[in-house]
Amino acid sequence: MSTTPPSERTRAKRIHDRGAYDRDTIYSVLDAGFVCNVAYVIDDSPYVTPTIHWREGDQIYWHGSSASRMLRRSTNAEVCLSVAHNDGLVLARSGFHHSLNYRSVMAFGVARLVEGDDMKTARLKTFVERLYPGRWDTLRPVTTKELKATTILTMPLTEASAKIRSGPPVDDEEDYALSVWAGVLPLTTVPGTPVPCERLDPAIPIPEYLNAPEPG
Amino acid sequence: MSTTPPSERTRAKRIHDRGAYDRDTIYSVLDAGFVCNVAYVIDDSPYVTPTIHWREGDQIYWHGSSASRMLRRSTNAEVCLSVAHNDGLVLARSGFHHSLNYRSVMAFGVARLVEGDDMKTARLKTFVERLYPGRWDTLRPVTTKELKATTILTMPLTEASAKIRSGPPVDDEEDYALSVWAGVLPLTTVPGTPVPCERLDPAIPIPEYLNAPEPG
Repeated sequence: MSTTPPSERTRAKRIHDRGAYDRDTIYSVLDAGFVCNVAYVIDDSPYVTPTIHWREGDQIYWHGSSASRMLRRSTNAEVCLSVAHNDGLVLARSGFHHSLNYRSVMAFGVARLVEGDDMKTARLKTFVERLYPGRWDTLRPVTTKELKATTILTMPLTEASAKIRSGPPVDDEEDYALSVWAGVLPLTTVPGTPVPCERLDPAIPIPEYLNAPEPG
Repeated sequence: MSTTPPSERTRAKRIHDRGAYDRDTIYSVLDAGFVCNVAYVIDDSPYVTPTIHWREGDQIYWHGSSASRMLRRSTNAEVCLSVAHNDGLVLARSGFHHSLNYRSVMAFGVARLVEGDDMKTARLKTFVERLYPGRWDTLRPVTTKELKATTILTMPLTEASAKIRSGPPVDDEEDYALSVWAGVLPLTTVPGTPVPCERLDPAIPIPEYLNAPEPG
């Protein structure tokens, strides 16, 4: 298990035991969901856009329309990418100590274009296979025109950190005697029943991968 | 129903029918969840931090420790705040048309401090009551020291827009005949069984508000 030394930006500033820098933790938080938030700067102003992400080794990827402002303006520019899972509401005995259980990652870097049709196709395959194992080969091949209309950005996870809170509320010692309910309300994202497209041939069965629990 | 005219930044750039600017839509997306992402700029670099938000009228609020870098550096500074709910994975008949159903809001503004103990206390009460109706009055009063240790930021929703995707995949006409499953896998965030703090008096019952469905 390798370790990324924290930079000035990624070092957890206040609650040091909540910060984690080992790669396995960072990878597992990134891989437990599929939507990140990417922040970037245009004309000195901050912007943040939620988008789907995926990871291959130490590279993180996100993509969209080649016409997207977010993708055009963050190519070769500094970005900050954040992933967070909300695991539970933490109800303490004082308003002050109410909290949230979460797993989050913050990563800084310069976003680079993935270039070349073969490279882009391989990345898109990884993205689809990650969410729907076995689906890629059941789809028609991606076209050159579609590849041209798709921008994929990537950055290495060289400056990244994870932050995790879990467990019960932590109250002031004298508050434990108060007569108020305290604990955690767990939150989970769950997949529902697949809804077939109205134009789908009813003979086509729901694929196996939609019955498996989703990451998240 | 009043309408916010889109600014150059909030106008949906490409898929115009996905952009919504009316206040009711923006409010309902913000109120359907409790975690936003706030982007800000420090020394020309973008940062984004997930944090809890709440709304009162046309003002949005977020808060944290007064020692928080995010809060200190975004006070009186430009921020971009994003809220997104992932409602479903959209499986199309080509890789290209795979998508996500979501409801999102993007808001720009200058973050201002909420000042004065009475004002801060009132805002914290709104925050707690929104998640746990009736809880505030069961908690001990917040102390002056706790208020000092808490920074609350706010901005008006004057430059905000919503973006929503819902419904089935939209495929190229010639792809509808392909023999591949297409449709939507709905996703929902659900509350689990409340987990009492180990030090809780077992005679204290689980409050009503934890049995109601959570927003989100």
